[in-house]
Amino acid sequence: MTPLWQSQPVGVVGLGLIGGSLGLDLRRQGATVHALVHRAETAERARQRELADRVDTDPAVLAECGLVLLCLPLDRLLAPEPALRAALPPAAVVTDVGSVKGPLLAAWEPWLGGRFVGSHPMAGTARCGVEAGEEGLFRGRPWVVTPTPRTDPAALEAVETLAQALGALPIRCEAGDHDRAVALISHLPVLVSAALLRAADEGATAELAPLVRTLASSGFADTSRVGGGNPELGALMARHNRPALRAALAAYRHALDDLEGLVEGGDWEGLRQRLEHCQMLRPGFLKD
Amino acid sequence: MTPLWQSQPVGVVGLGLIGGSLGLDLRRQGATVHALVHRAETAERARQRELADRVDTDPAVLAECGLVLLCLPLDRLLAPEPALRAALPPAAVVTDVGSVKGPLLAAWEPWLGGRFVGSHPMAGTARCGVEAGEEGLFRGRPWVVTPTPRTDPAALEAVETLAQALGALPIRCEAGDHDRAVALISHLPVLVSAALLRAADEGATAELAPLVRTLASSGFADTSRVGGGNPELGALMARHNRPALRAALAAYRHALDDLEGLVEGGDWEGLRQRLEHCQMLRPGFLKD
Repeated sequence: MTPLWQSQPVGVVGLGLIGGSLGLDLRRQGATVHALVHRAETAERARQRELADRVDTDPAVLAECGLVLLCLPLDRLLAPEPALRAALPPAAVVTDVGSVKGPLLAAWEPWLGGRFVGSHPMAGTARCGVEAGEEGLFRGRPWVVTPTPRTDPAALEAVETLAQALGALPIRCEAGDHDRAVALISHLPVLVSAALLRAADEGATAELAPLVRTLASSGFADTSRVGGGNPELGALMARHNRPALRAALAAYRHALDDLEGLVEGGDWEGLRQRLEHCQMLRPGFLKD
Repeated sequence: MTPLWQSQPVGVVGLGLIGGSLGLDLRRQGATVHALVHRAETAERARQRELADRVDTDPAVLAECGLVLLCLPLDRLLAPEPALRAALPPAAVVTDVGSVKGPLLAAWEPWLGGRFVGSHPMAGTARCGVEAGEEGLFRGRPWVVTPTPRTDPAALEAVETLAQALGALPIRCEAGDHDRAVALISHLPVLVSAALLRAADEGATAELAPLVRTLASSGFADTSRVGGGNPELGALMARHNRPALRAALAAYRHALDDLEGLVEGGDWEGLRQRLEHCQMLRPGFLKD
């Protein structure tokens, strides 16, 4: 069977990092891409970059699409504009790329039913906006799909086939499991890392501050990277994944309390054993 | 004036990552390197790798050296073996490479006086042992020297000239300032990052654990890197820099409490502002 995205145009709503990258990859795969963007300047630049076959600010551009990919920021996915909702073709499979899945399913499934498939391609760079999209962004990366009992199997298959065609690795799981997992490995690290940046700033006197900055090396750069990332994205993820993030913070606090207690108590052999355990844990979280 | 390390042999005590790298770089600079190691197998392998001109397990190998670099782990630097102490030539300039400077000065300066210079070349890789040494490790890296009022200016100059010859950037500061700075940018990140690894492990149920590991990506890998590092080194640094590390942990806890409070209170604009501040702070800690 010809994949859905080869027999009809594919709609892409939003041409930022994820939408733009999807547009480029889909076109390379022979798909026809119809893109909806908010601003005329974005549309013009997207046409120059050839991110899609058609780019428009009029939602009618989605009219013939059999599959629509919603590539908007989380807040706009959770409160879609009426014009966008009205323009989605009545039979189209609709998926999204939001980084929190439970609230998105709660927002979209009651309305679209089984033809809405929650998904989350887990790829990114530090860039954003219409200049950010790049070819091959999803290659080798997990692409989570979160079907529910209502999900239409054909819609699910359409999204998974798309993910595979772009070189991503489809992973099926429940939305709640996805949200708890990303709280631990994506949203918690942002706060942990941001707090480190503030401690390195606020923990130094004015006299010490220049030395602290001079001596910071690759270890500090790595540990502080995600804490110095996009603040809008960080706040949105926290907002919309709050229960899971609170649980992750509680687990973090428990672990930090334990390590701090060993320092307070001068239990250096205990500290060495905990750090040895961490050294043993880490490879399980790394890709080959 | 010919640098001290070109007119007489340079002694290197310990040929792990730092000592081995120093040996290779010094030999390239035309110095004659006499190295003292603990075990005969290490000596044999060091000779094969040509890390020094002479390698011995007998401290007498240091007899003719005008400059001796102590490249031992922190605990062995703080409690040097009597045979090593006895073998240090009476007029030699002695320096060390330990990552905490206050306790080292307290241990060595009362005995060696002005010819002991505390120093800390801030370079490293994840490797250790006699296989780890590599050429060019110090190039472009800070090399802290911590003179005191007792320090002999000629001894200080000898160490700074050495650092410069290896391409490092000598930075003079007080030992206490060094120790407070590295607590914030090196020792604190180890605990912050280790606690993240434990939270990602302990914060997940047995059912969720495989998904958490599958979805962990580059952000988690970066934030957890130093927490999964050498446990002996992490525990030693904490032990010997305890007051500064406790102060750094207090600053960290204050910052984390604030961020967590915003999540608890649902103050998303406040959280966005804090993350924006962190984004602004981070470039100040990065090298060009």
